[in-house]
Amino acid sequence: MGLFNKQDRVLLIPLGGLGEIGKNMMAVECNREILVIDAGLAFPDEDMLGIDLVIPDISYLVDNRERVKGILLTHGHEDHIGALPYVLKQLNVPIYGTKLTLGLAKGKFEEHNMVRDVRTVCVKAGDEVKIGNFSVEFIHVNHSIADVTALAIHTSVGVILHTADFKFDHTPVDGKVTDFRKLAELGDKGVLVLLSDSTNVEREGYTPSERELNKTFNELFVQAPGRILVATFASNIHRVQQIMDTAFHHERKVALVGRSMINVASIAMDLGYLKVPEGLLVDIDEIDRYPANRVAIITTGTQGEPMSALTRMATSDHRKINIVPGDTVLISASTIPGNEKLVARTINHLFKQGATVIYESDSGIHVSGHASQEEQKLMLNLVRPRYFVPVHGEYRHLVQHAHLAVELGIDSENVVIAENGDMIEVTREKIRIASKVASGKVFVDGLGVGDVGNIVLRDRKQLSQDGILIVVVTIDKESSRIVAGPDIVSRGFVYVRESEELIEEAKEKVKQAIENCSQNADWATMKNQIREILGKHLYGRMKRRPMILPIIMEV
Amino acid sequence: MGLFNKQDRVLLIPLGGLGEIGKNMMAVECNREILVIDAGLAFPDEDMLGIDLVIPDISYLVDNRERVKGILLTHGHEDHIGALPYVLKQLNVPIYGTKLTLGLAKGKFEEHNMVRDVRTVCVKAGDEVKIGNFSVEFIHVNHSIADVTALAIHTSVGVILHTADFKFDHTPVDGKVTDFRKLAELGDKGVLVLLSDSTNVEREGYTPSERELNKTFNELFVQAPGRILVATFASNIHRVQQIMDTAFHHERKVALVGRSMINVASIAMDLGYLKVPEGLLVDIDEIDRYPANRVAIITTGTQGEPMSALTRMATSDHRKINIVPGDTVLISASTIPGNEKLVARTINHLFKQGATVIYESDSGIHVSGHASQEEQKLMLNLVRPRYFVPVHGEYRHLVQHAHLAVELGIDSENVVIAENGDMIEVTREKIRIASKVASGKVFVDGLGVGDVGNIVLRDRKQLSQDGILIVVVTIDKESSRIVAGPDIVSRGFVYVRESEELIEEAKEKVKQAIENCSQNADWATMKNQIREILGKHLYGRMKRRPMILPIIMEV
Repeated sequence: MGLFNKQDRVLLIPLGGLGEIGKNMMAVECNREILVIDAGLAFPDEDMLGIDLVIPDISYLVDNRERVKGILLTHGHEDHIGALPYVLKQLNVPIYGTKLTLGLAKGKFEEHNMVRDVRTVCVKAGDEVKIGNFSVEFIHVNHSIADVTALAIHTSVGVILHTADFKFDHTPVDGKVTDFRKLAELGDKGVLVLLSDSTNVEREGYTPSERELNKTFNELFVQAPGRILVATFASNIHRVQQIMDTAFHHERKVALVGRSMINVASIAMDLGYLKVPEGLLVDIDEIDRYPANRVAIITTGTQGEPMSALTRMATSDHRKINIVPGDTVLISASTIPGNEKLVARTINHLFKQGATVIYESDSGIHVSGHASQEEQKLMLNLVRPRYFVPVHGEYRHLVQHAHLAVELGIDSENVVIAENGDMIEVTREKIRIASKVASGKVFVDGLGVGDVGNIVLRDRKQLSQDGILIVVVTIDKESSRIVAGPDIVSRGFVYVRESEELIEEAKEKVKQAIENCSQNADWATMKNQIREILGKHLYGRMKRRPMILPIIMEV
Repeated sequence: MGLFNKQDRVLLIPLGGLGEIGKNMMAVECNREILVIDAGLAFPDEDMLGIDLVIPDISYLVDNRERVKGILLTHGHEDHIGALPYVLKQLNVPIYGTKLTLGLAKGKFEEHNMVRDVRTVCVKAGDEVKIGNFSVEFIHVNHSIADVTALAIHTSVGVILHTADFKFDHTPVDGKVTDFRKLAELGDKGVLVLLSDSTNVEREGYTPSERELNKTFNELFVQAPGRILVATFASNIHRVQQIMDTAFHHERKVALVGRSMINVASIAMDLGYLKVPEGLLVDIDEIDRYPANRVAIITTGTQGEPMSALTRMATSDHRKINIVPGDTVLISASTIPGNEKLVARTINHLFKQGATVIYESDSGIHVSGHASQEEQKLMLNLVRPRYFVPVHGEYRHLVQHAHLAVELGIDSENVVIAENGDMIEVTREKIRIASKVASGKVFVDGLGVGDVGNIVLRDRKQLSQDGILIVVVTIDKESSRIVAGPDIVSRGFVYVRESEELIEEAKEKVKQAIENCSQNADWATMKNQIREILGKHLYGRMKRRPMILPIIMEV
């Protein structure tokens, strides 16, 4: 009945990224020591009104802070490092990552004014590092950013292999292929648990190589009669490299536009990940000195973000660049679910400005950074783990990835579909969800972390739907008589100037509600009366339910 | 210079559906008479907070109401008939449509309690009807609802051919193929302007026949070990027919679930469009009397709508049906842009309940109702119009459809990309955008039509982001001294119980602002002071910008 020494078990505790896309974080616990894999953020859903970012609830780590030995970073994407500034304010532990990953993280620490407080350990693929009783191997994999590592965490119970976000790219832009041999070697020696990226499990076949884009870019750079603008993710350094190389080949000058594009590119250049041919880059202010067909602009805004460079250009709102007929715009990215309408709006605006726009539905200008089904199978077959836990995906992705594993012959009892907060207990004999720890979403709104909760969001929701009606009345403490008001102010409800009659009616209802109250009714009762009577009246008249906020002033 | 008799021109005035998907409406004007094609609604964008529906601005029609001779309905989808109740309250004109279209419209008039006020003229495909000096032919086309007609409007200048929403389905479920011959005949005699559906212009090739789904449905009905639940659009009567036929063939009983499914199916049965095999339908309350593998349920909720039957089932919130392991759920629809996250959420929940879910990324359970590129080309070539105006699509769709026409040899001067409100003037010699009329979005919120405008929406937006802070202070009129307050109440800003300090600080700032004002400052100045000082303070401290609403009560 589960009687075994604590040394004989590993606990895997996902704190983010299971049952969702984003805010990836996984704790690995053995011999009372904890290692954390990644500390990512998520972007808010449309119902998280006013929220800037979402980070994982790390109560479990904070409660056990003396046992946390470090945070391992697989790569430098926001959904893997974005929560670091918030997490490290609560957990003073070293972080381990490759040069580029740490370089990108450092940018965040600078923004948060905490560079000096953070302890970093720079590793490279192939390294093996002792951390407490753990030994961690960093294994090169391909993805849509450079310098990504899977992690083999050696514990006293066995090896935990975490794939990071990965794909198998046989012709990566930098020539560095996923370290098949190390994966095979680990599989050969025996892997206890494989944690593998589920993001693209709905796609059959193989994800094409990043190199495949080369052909399309070349064709488009030849065809384009005027300027070429390519929007892509700033962090996709190999993509940026390919675009620069193509521009160089076709004798176009390149300007970088957009804060994050300039920022990430300069980090990548400094660290040697982006190799810019001499004389290629020009300042955006000088770009007009070259003929249109000698110009390429690399920019951000693939998701139609309202403040991004591309969106501003599309709506003639960019300080330096106006889209003109003859421009060719390539949107070299896929649309993140939830952003479809924003992206469509940007594309429509670009068409209105007269640009030729090449986007998703046209093939060949974007490839994914995540493994498709056949690659996920290859990972499973290279590693042949005893246990399998799909990670990084919404619930349906995890289920489908689990199905894949079972199809390949892994015993379904050895496959666990877990959710954030599950404590997965692994022994040599068995894997099971043993219990639950605190987990969830912590909202970042401005400088506030966690101070906006469900009550505030519920209020924002109601305010957003039908606005607010504020009823102020000043009452004499002694006589309980109204001495001023009721005044009614509304916002987001109706345009008041056109609704005077409505407001007058409402005032009458408020007076009536106050009169209805017995002489010695307390203010709370009186407020409830006002809310109820006025609410019913407005719904009957308009089928709207604004928030009604009675305020009673005593004099 | 444009000198010609007014009889020698037709005006085409799109009031909706150009540069957007939805709220389709087009006015056709000749000899001072106006015919209107369709009166559709659109669903609100995510930034139209609290809005229920969007309808076209029909000021132009209202201003010229004595000249409007009627509204022609192409088919019964919401984006073609949904604005009728609102439009007909302002325009007392007859509406023309086929039996099913009018049947569906009637449901709306009942809801709005206006059945007796509406004059309807029931037509059938093949009819030609005189309306004023116009003569209108109704021409059968295929789409994802039955009884759809394109319109050939004969004017003194020439024929205006409006395709409606269409596809060419060679094997439609009801056997009624698009009336190729009539289209060809019109083309042969000469069509002045073709207005053609652009929705699917981004898709190459042909849209598959509705009949193609038969094979997939059959396979799935054989494989499914337990109950089958099929979600689809209620209005897709041929889809519902196919599902019923498949269920009958495999000896499953069928229950209909969801208000609109029951509603539309009963209209379609009454009117003879849906033929239900005897003994097939059972009441949902009786469905548990049959073994799971003898049951099929047809329901709504393909868009993940929070209140829909499928979403309720997925979240264990449906009164009658719980999803259990063994259930197979088919989502037989595509996701409308903007709904991706809601649909994904529903699918994830269904997986959590243990259902097998077949959805979009799996092929073969949905086909579109709109023509793909090759069908759009076929329409252009059958009709060979003198002028071409792409309709029904976002701006990029209209541009791409225009490109198709030019590729087929139509002179680019004869192709017009128009937007809502453009007045397109067509003579035998020329087509051009001659001027603009009022057009745009009218918001329906509860019972209010048009009373919510941009100011209200802007307020709702601000309220939804950072909430509201209400500052109330009672001031003695004579002395300008504070006699009560300042009180501060917030909603959607921070959870107040945890922020007492913040509120106390804010009160101090308000006092300070009031003291700063000179003795004889008016209330407006004082309010501005409060807003400014408090706003700056809160942004500095929290990086949030709640709405600040100062209210001054005089005693």
